[in-house]
Amino acid sequence: MPATLLDGKSVAEQIRNDLSDRIKASHRKLGRPPGLAIVLVGDDPASEVYVRNKLRTAEESGMSVSLTRLPGSTPLAKVIATVEALNHDANVHGILVQSPLPKALGDAAEQQVFDTISPAKDVDGFSPVSAGFLAQNRPGFVPCTPAGVIEMLDRCGIAVEGRRAVVIGRSEIVGKPMALLLLRRNATVTICHSRTRDLPGVCREADILVAAIGRPGFVTRDFVKAGAVVIDVGINRVTDPAAAKRLFANEPRRLALFEKNGSALVGDVHPEVVDVAGQLTPVPGGVGPLTIAMLMANTVRAAELAAAAS
Amino acid sequence: MPATLLDGKSVAEQIRNDLSDRIKASHRKLGRPPGLAIVLVGDDPASEVYVRNKLRTAEESGMSVSLTRLPGSTPLAKVIATVEALNHDANVHGILVQSPLPKALGDAAEQQVFDTISPAKDVDGFSPVSAGFLAQNRPGFVPCTPAGVIEMLDRCGIAVEGRRAVVIGRSEIVGKPMALLLLRRNATVTICHSRTRDLPGVCREADILVAAIGRPGFVTRDFVKAGAVVIDVGINRVTDPAAAKRLFANEPRRLALFEKNGSALVGDVHPEVVDVAGQLTPVPGGVGPLTIAMLMANTVRAAELAAAAS
Repeated sequence: MPATLLDGKSVAEQIRNDLSDRIKASHRKLGRPPGLAIVLVGDDPASEVYVRNKLRTAEESGMSVSLTRLPGSTPLAKVIATVEALNHDANVHGILVQSPLPKALGDAAEQQVFDTISPAKDVDGFSPVSAGFLAQNRPGFVPCTPAGVIEMLDRCGIAVEGRRAVVIGRSEIVGKPMALLLLRRNATVTICHSRTRDLPGVCREADILVAAIGRPGFVTRDFVKAGAVVIDVGINRVTDPAAAKRLFANEPRRLALFEKNGSALVGDVHPEVVDVAGQLTPVPGGVGPLTIAMLMANTVRAAELAAAAS
Repeated sequence: MPATLLDGKSVAEQIRNDLSDRIKASHRKLGRPPGLAIVLVGDDPASEVYVRNKLRTAEESGMSVSLTRLPGSTPLAKVIATVEALNHDANVHGILVQSPLPKALGDAAEQQVFDTISPAKDVDGFSPVSAGFLAQNRPGFVPCTPAGVIEMLDRCGIAVEGRRAVVIGRSEIVGKPMALLLLRRNATVTICHSRTRDLPGVCREADILVAAIGRPGFVTRDFVKAGAVVIDVGINRVTDPAAAKRLFANEPRRLALFEKNGSALVGDVHPEVVDVAGQLTPVPGGVGPLTIAMLMANTVRAAELAAAAS
């Protein structure tokens, strides 16, 4: 029996529906809607798409949203000054600086910019204070993707407590916060990475396996215990026909689509895992939609906290 | 063959010897010695012992050290004001508020006080900024006990990369930072706790097993893979004769000492583990001495950073 697919789109819709009343209540209390400010530096085409989706979702949710566009040549000091101004803007409850920043700004730019965002408005959860609050089990903003995975597990009735969870990947944005959130829910958590020996064997210990590595189809069936819950955080664009043939060997429809479009989106989990897993998030339509939904949830929470403090 | 005992005292001495030149250099550069300020509220007898040891070690190391004693009845605002004054005192490079604070100050007191310590002087590494820097792999102050364990592994030539490490316990002070530090060293890390199912089985996966739970002799031989490295962070005082008899069944000398003194210090690891482990830290004399040595190391580093910034 193939795995049940976990429908991220419908979970994201539930989350947004649940936010609707809170957005109205915040609006009444503050005299203005919860406000999200997005800063986009440069013209990375993928970032354009992400930002457009965030803007649209925020608007449709009844929030106010502003986009500050800065050219790729903007000096770092100007980017930082922009964030500082937003920190002081009472109409703005959440600030998001779209990653990645242009390479020309230097390796340390992103960290410096994220560090500038006020912890009270850090709805991406990338600042060290937010990361520290998460590690210390204190209330604070949690990065949207791992927060969305927990929300999905909850809303799909998947128990976490006492189960073995394995996270592949240890990024600041997904892997590590994911591990800390699963730990907070009383899973026994293992974090794997490129230096892990016998990675498939370690992953087969998992009742809940989260893949966040950014390599298309990397997690094959030998990584997965029969009946495990598999959460695929990767979103990779595949353009190599040989790779597509391997990935879609048993999926003629996706292969045909690939051949028509010249590319396809593939997760970190190989499509064959559907034959082994008990539950599986598809790509696209799994974890992806939850990330934006949690950005909305974090922004609403920031507005509620601002309302409570005013 | 019984496990090799890892001698924490001698490793701590090495660490302190290595600090000696750095302390002199900082002294020259700053025109004053690296300064550690300890705040002790109330009169908990165990805290008295810990503070005395820290004071003595700092003095013997050529650092300046001050002790601010406040009565147990001190209001929280006064404790916080004391820390704020130390934040602004140029003679003070590291600030340590001895834990636990008196219960009368309330459950949230410790967090509020630790949050007040300037991140630049947070040599205990308990502030959220320090915890965030650790989670984000950024330079910052790491809690002394897990930092000491890493130092011990390094100085005893115990490889970490690619090995399976299991940490029992998920406190902010030991378990979680320990897991993050082992991860930084490229171990495959599992965190266990009270809700973990088949705890002995999970622990037997470990090449490196760290016990930090505060239960005397909890980790018995069935938790330990033959030849594993076992790090015992627990320091528990046992006063129950029946417990002592069980713990020291094969250690007539320690049992005799217990009977003479009416109590004994026992780690979280049962003494019988010496027959299974490859390497083992004793209690006392294992991890304990490293904690103070790392407090000195953190304070010297704080002084060096202050010197570099001045």
